[in-house]
Amino acid sequence: MDSKLNIVPFVSVDHMMRLVNTIGVERFLTDLAAYIEEDFRRWELFDKTPRVASHSMDGVIELMPTSDGQLYGFKYVNGHPKNTRDGRQTVTAFGVLADVGNGYPTLLTEMTILTALRTAAMSAVAAKYLAPEGADTMAVIGNGAQSEFQALAFKAILNIRRLRLYDIDPSASRRCARNLAGLGFDVTICATAQQAVEGAHIVTTATADKQTATILSDNMVGAGVHINAVGGDCPGKTELHRGILLRSDIFVEFPEQTRVEGEIQQLAADHPVTELWQVIAGKVAGRTGERQITLFDSVGFAIEDFSALRYVRDQLKATGLYQELDLLADPDEPRDLFGMLLRAASSGKLAALSA
Amino acid sequence: MDSKLNIVPFVSVDHMMRLVNTIGVERFLTDLAAYIEEDFRRWELFDKTPRVASHSMDGVIELMPTSDGQLYGFKYVNGHPKNTRDGRQTVTAFGVLADVGNGYPTLLTEMTILTALRTAAMSAVAAKYLAPEGADTMAVIGNGAQSEFQALAFKAILNIRRLRLYDIDPSASRRCARNLAGLGFDVTICATAQQAVEGAHIVTTATADKQTATILSDNMVGAGVHINAVGGDCPGKTELHRGILLRSDIFVEFPEQTRVEGEIQQLAADHPVTELWQVIAGKVAGRTGERQITLFDSVGFAIEDFSALRYVRDQLKATGLYQELDLLADPDEPRDLFGMLLRAASSGKLAALSA
Repeated sequence: MDSKLNIVPFVSVDHMMRLVNTIGVERFLTDLAAYIEEDFRRWELFDKTPRVASHSMDGVIELMPTSDGQLYGFKYVNGHPKNTRDGRQTVTAFGVLADVGNGYPTLLTEMTILTALRTAAMSAVAAKYLAPEGADTMAVIGNGAQSEFQALAFKAILNIRRLRLYDIDPSASRRCARNLAGLGFDVTICATAQQAVEGAHIVTTATADKQTATILSDNMVGAGVHINAVGGDCPGKTELHRGILLRSDIFVEFPEQTRVEGEIQQLAADHPVTELWQVIAGKVAGRTGERQITLFDSVGFAIEDFSALRYVRDQLKATGLYQELDLLADPDEPRDLFGMLLRAASSGKLAALSA
Repeated sequence: MDSKLNIVPFVSVDHMMRLVNTIGVERFLTDLAAYIEEDFRRWELFDKTPRVASHSMDGVIELMPTSDGQLYGFKYVNGHPKNTRDGRQTVTAFGVLADVGNGYPTLLTEMTILTALRTAAMSAVAAKYLAPEGADTMAVIGNGAQSEFQALAFKAILNIRRLRLYDIDPSASRRCARNLAGLGFDVTICATAQQAVEGAHIVTTATADKQTATILSDNMVGAGVHINAVGGDCPGKTELHRGILLRSDIFVEFPEQTRVEGEIQQLAADHPVTELWQVIAGKVAGRTGERQITLFDSVGFAIEDFSALRYVRDQLKATGLYQELDLLADPDEPRDLFGMLLRAASSGKLAALSA
């Protein structure tokens, strides 16, 4: 690709689906988790800009940039809860990877599917360090777009085999169970969240309401459980009762962001939390006891998207699953942008240059 | 395009060149200038976020977002002065327009060429309000990638016919003159900057050095001139002697940004400047006298890119000069992202879903 300076490889939705299916969802999640772990180990290297959000009545559009000094990445992502009414996704995303040395983009990719995969891989990475030993049963409360990805990441990385599904919409649980059929799970659809958490070593909450809700009440969480809280991810949106937070050891991605967007927005600004990267880098302990309740308060951070962009870029050469996008002007002589336009005009099929 | 929710129209470099050449450069610049004026008149409506910059040893990568409440736009742009050494552009850019109501992108376009056009159109808009009446002669100091675009914008919008070119590299002036041959100018190549400004009503400076330079010294600028300072556009990069600034009435895009990036970084933080939008909106006077020196301290602001994105979007339907990019995941059922992946796997040509 290097010889054609105008070209940026582009991974469309169709190419992303083919990439995931060619590699296999579980291997994709496992490999992606390894990229995330690698980047979390060198966390301190990264430029950690808060996301740049543009809020409106109906939702938010965000740009999430980061850089490790060699590569620069950003994700464009929207969140519009009402979108499903007219058949659109609540969240869509695309991302770009670029070379810090010359500023040229080196990858443009869809990230709606990729974000679902990286969120699930991130959850499983956290659980690898925090879940109780021998965990094989996970409750999944909220069975929307994220649920199957979470299930498969936990199967691939933690060997979770039993799923206990609950959603306020029973058809969502049925669809999740149907989508996962034949993929090696023992699935139980539950009538209540209370029933779903019975016997679960890990509880994943991934509901979509844009409001403060109590998906898990205090009495539902017993000793030794790991909670993977995925759904509370913006100001005013939480899923857990405050009492659970007070009984848990809380692990977060980037405290400055999580205190605004995560479950811990319910707590005092100085409530102690542990940065997950420090656990992964071996600087502080993850789970320290059998009866400890651990909570991963996941909101999604730019570095995870960066890992995902790196991973996708590294698959392009072997798979060829991308197209070449003519995105960057490349005049024969760098300073002669206008000359390029002139030569395009005189190359035949074009109308007069000047009006 | 509305029925295919996965599709975002994409304007490649090739399509942009064809679009400009089909419309005609001068008409493109004139129409684009009208879009910029329209947006400057409703300046107060816009969300004015400062650009988000990621600096490195070799350059900078920036995201420039803005929104008028209905549309959201952002530009990705890099600045890497050493890039020309290996045949790359110093500045490349691409941009996205999106619908604030649902967060879906509605346009992805190259913006390297488009930025050159919008910068020139912006300069001409400012000069329309600030240049002396009857101006027909412009000095252009710095004859790089921006020079021809500036010349044509000033011809189309202010009827400038005489150009006085100067560059420290005489071959740059010769190339500029050659590129403009037959486009209606009387061009003089000058041996010094001093010679270039003689008899000029408008002086455009557009040099590329990333440092404090004195392209115009104090004695070179006489009464009644309009200075269009395009090249001083980042911290540590200026083109004009401080004495000129002190004798001029200074007009800027967005003071918060210009005080850091523009010529006025040489002045006190409270030196009086006029916001150009207020002139365009008729709230304050532009040029008020024959002997007044006016200075447009141009650094480029996100709203100008927004205008350019709007203009390009409005040309797509009539010209068809775009391709359809499969950028957004569009499952049959919005919450069933995984089901879409499953169905893609079972649709035939794909390997096993699970590893």
